[in-house]
Amino acid sequence: MRKVAVLGVGVTKFTGAQEKTGVELFAEAAGDAFLDARMKPKDIQALFIGNVLGDFSEGQGMPQCLAAENIGCFNIPANRYEGACASGSMAIRDAFLLIANGAYDVIMAGGLERAATMGTPLATRTFAMFSDARYEYPAGITFPAVFALLAHLYSDKYKIPVDRLREQMARVSIQACKHGSVNPKAQFFGKYGDLTIDKVLKAFVVASPLGLHDCCPFSDGASSVILVSEDIAKRMTDKPIWITGAGQASSGTLSNQKAYLPRIYAREVASKQAYAMAGIKPDDVDLIELHDCFSIASIIASESLGFFDYGKAGEAWEKGQADIGGKIAICPSGGLKAKGHPIGATGGGQVYEVVKQLRGEAIPANQVPNAKIGMTDTLGGEGGTLVNLILEKGY
Amino acid sequence: MRKVAVLGVGVTKFTGAQEKTGVELFAEAAGDAFLDARMKPKDIQALFIGNVLGDFSEGQGMPQCLAAENIGCFNIPANRYEGACASGSMAIRDAFLLIANGAYDVIMAGGLERAATMGTPLATRTFAMFSDARYEYPAGITFPAVFALLAHLYSDKYKIPVDRLREQMARVSIQACKHGSVNPKAQFFGKYGDLTIDKVLKAFVVASPLGLHDCCPFSDGASSVILVSEDIAKRMTDKPIWITGAGQASSGTLSNQKAYLPRIYAREVASKQAYAMAGIKPDDVDLIELHDCFSIASIIASESLGFFDYGKAGEAWEKGQADIGGKIAICPSGGLKAKGHPIGATGGGQVYEVVKQLRGEAIPANQVPNAKIGMTDTLGGEGGTLVNLILEKGY
Repeated sequence: MRKVAVLGVGVTKFTGAQEKTGVELFAEAAGDAFLDARMKPKDIQALFIGNVLGDFSEGQGMPQCLAAENIGCFNIPANRYEGACASGSMAIRDAFLLIANGAYDVIMAGGLERAATMGTPLATRTFAMFSDARYEYPAGITFPAVFALLAHLYSDKYKIPVDRLREQMARVSIQACKHGSVNPKAQFFGKYGDLTIDKVLKAFVVASPLGLHDCCPFSDGASSVILVSEDIAKRMTDKPIWITGAGQASSGTLSNQKAYLPRIYAREVASKQAYAMAGIKPDDVDLIELHDCFSIASIIASESLGFFDYGKAGEAWEKGQADIGGKIAICPSGGLKAKGHPIGATGGGQVYEVVKQLRGEAIPANQVPNAKIGMTDTLGGEGGTLVNLILEKGY
Repeated sequence: MRKVAVLGVGVTKFTGAQEKTGVELFAEAAGDAFLDARMKPKDIQALFIGNVLGDFSEGQGMPQCLAAENIGCFNIPANRYEGACASGSMAIRDAFLLIANGAYDVIMAGGLERAATMGTPLATRTFAMFSDARYEYPAGITFPAVFALLAHLYSDKYKIPVDRLREQMARVSIQACKHGSVNPKAQFFGKYGDLTIDKVLKAFVVASPLGLHDCCPFSDGASSVILVSEDIAKRMTDKPIWITGAGQASSGTLSNQKAYLPRIYAREVASKQAYAMAGIKPDDVDLIELHDCFSIASIIASESLGFFDYGKAGEAWEKGQADIGGKIAICPSGGLKAKGHPIGATGGGQVYEVVKQLRGEAIPANQVPNAKIGMTDTLGGEGGTLVNLILEKGY
């Protein structure tokens, strides 16, 4: 296998409802990625896009073809990947594998989504079809309900009373909002920086025990990442960021995973693959953008990924161990919770933030000092797809 | 690059509306592929699924995860690909590239779809979103209209009066129905074998000049193909079928391709890639399953692929040159027109038929004698994605 570098990254600001099409948003992100990589459309050999709700939110299928044309990449292969929230990371991992193994030298991967445009009630109902439509969806499950269920299972398994868990979860959201409120690319830029435990606990209930501030928003946005082979990276930059590890697994329906819950088995498979490929341990990771779609999701993910002992992640957040300067900086961008969650674009957005961190180009208030190794974690569906990527500073 | 073989294939019967879920249909096709390859679920390292309308027709997103679980392939990477009608071929090509370049050794690829379940009027309107939703769809375009437009452009460009072209197109449909009517896997099995030019010309108009019999049906169905690396193929069989060529290209919106129409530029890019990789010429191909979604589509495709001179394909059908025993056997399965078109499953269905032909295992009435080289051609959207695969008998 050859080494693969991320040579350029671009994202739009993640936002609430806005009027640009997903394809237009992607063109904006791609333009920034071209500038960042100092590359041109003719350099791109294939385009891989994550997009989930485009059929519903815009009535637009196969947006990857229009996106390729819009950014001037004519007649190249253009694939759309769908793995719910993990769609973009799936696209990036496929690009990584194809370059690492010599099939291509330069691929642009990323995602686009107009989820906020649908409005939260419709997006929530629509997105529920990424559970099992035959056996789970008809029982009334939605994704806030899935994670509320996991919170109760977590509370029960680790003997943390729900009221106490709610306090821990509040700290997860407060930390995310602190970072997101100062990130100009974040949906919550300038907002919720003054969130308090009291405000979180008193917010209206979405799916008990999750309140409004325990939930990430739906967002509009796009992300673009240019991946290149080792020789091109070395020719184009003396400051490469390498992808050194990648893992992916699917574990099917939530109901069939019940013996393992609240842990998501696919995450343990995928992260082990990524760690093994990179030859590192969880302790080596300086920062991670993980799938904090709900506050409890951060707690569960950080334990499965090996950063904290099982049942102890909530305390870690309370002690600042999950923040910049702690054991590991978790979601220093604000994460899905505060930077936003434009579903198919989220994975590319995570890679954008990790690359910026490793280069030392993050928003100063959110910069992790001396970051050398970063990671992404993207969960699609109820555990249906988990993708982990490990990135390392190459200079 | 390593050689890649198709070791096992399976398809459901392609049908009209039925009650199984797409995931259940896929499990049926996968079961046949396992038997055919003499492999077990634990042998599969990744699952790549083409699915287009599942969100609309079944309310089921990310069906690949449920499919993986249903067939006993636990915790492997499972990707969904969407490139309209080319989705399944896109999944198969990606599997081919990853195995050829050493990333995986065994991948199951294919597709699933319940398009017939939606009913033709709704499916037609829904599928129109695979045009440009911002500039073309609002102008009222549907896919029958796209191909009706191409028929008029073809008539004009090659000075074939529309009434004459309609006769030529009728022969395309009659040939397809002849083969489909004897194929037990075909939606038209036992039907339309007695189609005549008179019946075709007098059928009700769908989008002038295309009548009912110029159009393929929407179908329910699934397909599964097991691809393996050279060493595994050699260990498992003395009758390998190799994938020797693959190409893919995207050319964006129809309106931006207007200078080139009625030819689809992406097809010329993709097929050149596939021929070059295989080191063959069009004349070397014994049979092809091509994207005959409408009768005019067969005519246009066969010319771009290099089988007939431009403007002459209709005559070739009339003279039997596109049939078994002619210059090249085109869609000896019945094709999309008569075997059926379960959108995301179509590419895998084409590979199934080509593999059966190369092995000499096709329905006797449809068997191409001494077939050594077969090809597939799948068009997604209005030229948005074109995938070509070349398969060769390895014994």
